[in-house]
Amino acid sequence: MAQYCFALEMAVRDYECDLLGGVNNAVYQNYLEHARHEYLKTIGIDFAALAAQRINLVVTRIEIDYKTSLASGDRFVVEVRLERSSLVRIEFRQDIYRLSDRKVVVKALVTGIALNAKGRPQLPEAMKDILDRV
Amino acid sequence: MAQYCFALEMAVRDYECDLLGGVNNAVYQNYLEHARHEYLKTIGIDFAALAAQRINLVVTRIEIDYKTSLASGDRFVVEVRLERSSLVRIEFRQDIYRLSDRKVVVKALVTGIALNAKGRPQLPEAMKDILDRV
Amino acid sequence: MAQYCFALEMAVRDYECDLLGGVNNAVYQNYLEHARHEYLKTIGIDFAALAAQRINLVVTRIEIDYKTSLASGDRFVVEVRLERSSLVRIEFRQDIYRLSDRKVVVKALVTGIALNAKGRPQLPEAMKDILDRV
Amino acid sequence: MAQYCFALEMAVRDYECDLLGGVNNAVYQNYLEHARHEYLKTIGIDFAALAAQRINLVVTRIEIDYKTSLASGDRFVVEVRLERSSLVRIEFRQDIYRLSDRKVVVKALVTGIALNAKGRPQLPEAMKDILDRV
Repeated sequence: MAQYCFALEMAVRDYECDLLGGVNNAVYQNYLEHARHEYLKTIGIDFAALAAQRINLVVTRIEIDYKTSLASGDRFVVEVRLERSSLVRIEFRQDIYRLSDRKVVVKALVTGIALNAKGRPQLPEAMKDILDRV
Repeated sequence: MAQYCFALEMAVRDYECDLLGGVNNAVYQNYLEHARHEYLKTIGIDFAALAAQRINLVVTRIEIDYKTSLASGDRFVVEVRLERSSLVRIEFRQDIYRLSDRKVVVKALVTGIALNAKGRPQLPEAMKDILDRV
Repeated sequence: MAQYCFALEMAVRDYECDLLGGVNNAVYQNYLEHARHEYLKTIGIDFAALAAQRINLVVTRIEIDYKTSLASGDRFVVEVRLERSSLVRIEFRQDIYRLSDRKVVVKALVTGIALNAKGRPQLPEAMKDILDRV
Repeated sequence: MAQYCFALEMAVRDYECDLLGGVNNAVYQNYLEHARHEYLKTIGIDFAALAAQRINLVVTRIEIDYKTSLASGDRFVVEVRLERSSLVRIEFRQDIYRLSDRKVVVKALVTGIALNAKGRPQLPEAMKDILDRV
């Protein structure tokens, strides 16, 4: 079984909870994005720095299975695994676990691409090298 | 070809745009949720009123394909179609189109269930009747 | 009594409500920002277009009095008035009213400046002319 | 000079940044709320637990001076001080500092009250005792 290569611990903030008392669905995407960007930084890929060079990392597809809802005060971990990468596409498996009981909160599959200044898909050479080594 | 049964026009707000200059990925989920809740209201199902009765409509799975990015000032429409509904599950097809050129922005498939006060999946009778008639 | 010069009608979206069942405090700032930017557009000042030219309109101070809480389904109007403007500073009075009973929801005073590409306060000539005429 | 009684370290997340490349104004209010709730927990006051008992802690006024903008990757600390508390009202001084250079980012004054189940201002006895001891 493939293992995760990065984990980020976080805690629910009250403003992230909605009418139902738990974290709003869209907020999990925020968590996933933040963990993904933090992971990418650890392998030398900086989302904001690339954006400043007009290389935009964008998500083209996301699948999220919501298993358990997080609530106020919950601590959780976002685990990240680089599933696959090709010349144009990167795929991440990202799962969230509640820390108190290690219950699965969310299982997600995120596909991204890099767009160059002309809006064309193009993975920078440096990124390819990095991803090949991961 | 099945048609949409509800459409909600909206406009991008500047605070919804991120570093890359377009609407942040998670925000599209906000748009989808809002349009879904507005659609449900038109057929007599009120998310917040149900929550007050401790019947929670929750999303169990979402698939989103991001096709085009919306930017500041863009107007768009969220189209909704009730794809399928069973005793426990409701499935929505939700697509977003940019109004200026009718380009597809996002294609999404959203699966939801109703949880009763005990956290058990249970579609209220009234909702079943409504959904059968749609 | 000075009057408002712009009004924008909006409706609460469920994801904007928090644990307490009403709209989260920070979200009113989103409403205020959106109405302000829409108002500025009507007098020929486009926040995003200016940002692309590296002229950033930024808020330096905000005062908000929270009078009534908005809840799911509420419709409201954000009224805007240009209170004062000088060579470096623009001040907006922005009040939110619930439409059902015209109750005051929020009263706000927002001070903003324009920063040029060097991060220096500088109101573009064209903006000064526009603001003088308002 | 009165000192802060609580400090919470946080880091900017990319989705919190807007078109201008820095953290959006409204997001600082999220940071302030989160730090305030974390502080209150350390003195035995739990926002979400109180809400479940139908005692709502709500903000009635906020003043924020924006001094420096935070950007992607910045780490910062939210300092909190209980400024004053009466039978009905609690006032917090909350300042945000960037960690890299200890520059002031935001200075805020937040006034809150407790509303009982009937929507009337009423500070629970236990809270009064706690606040008196702080």
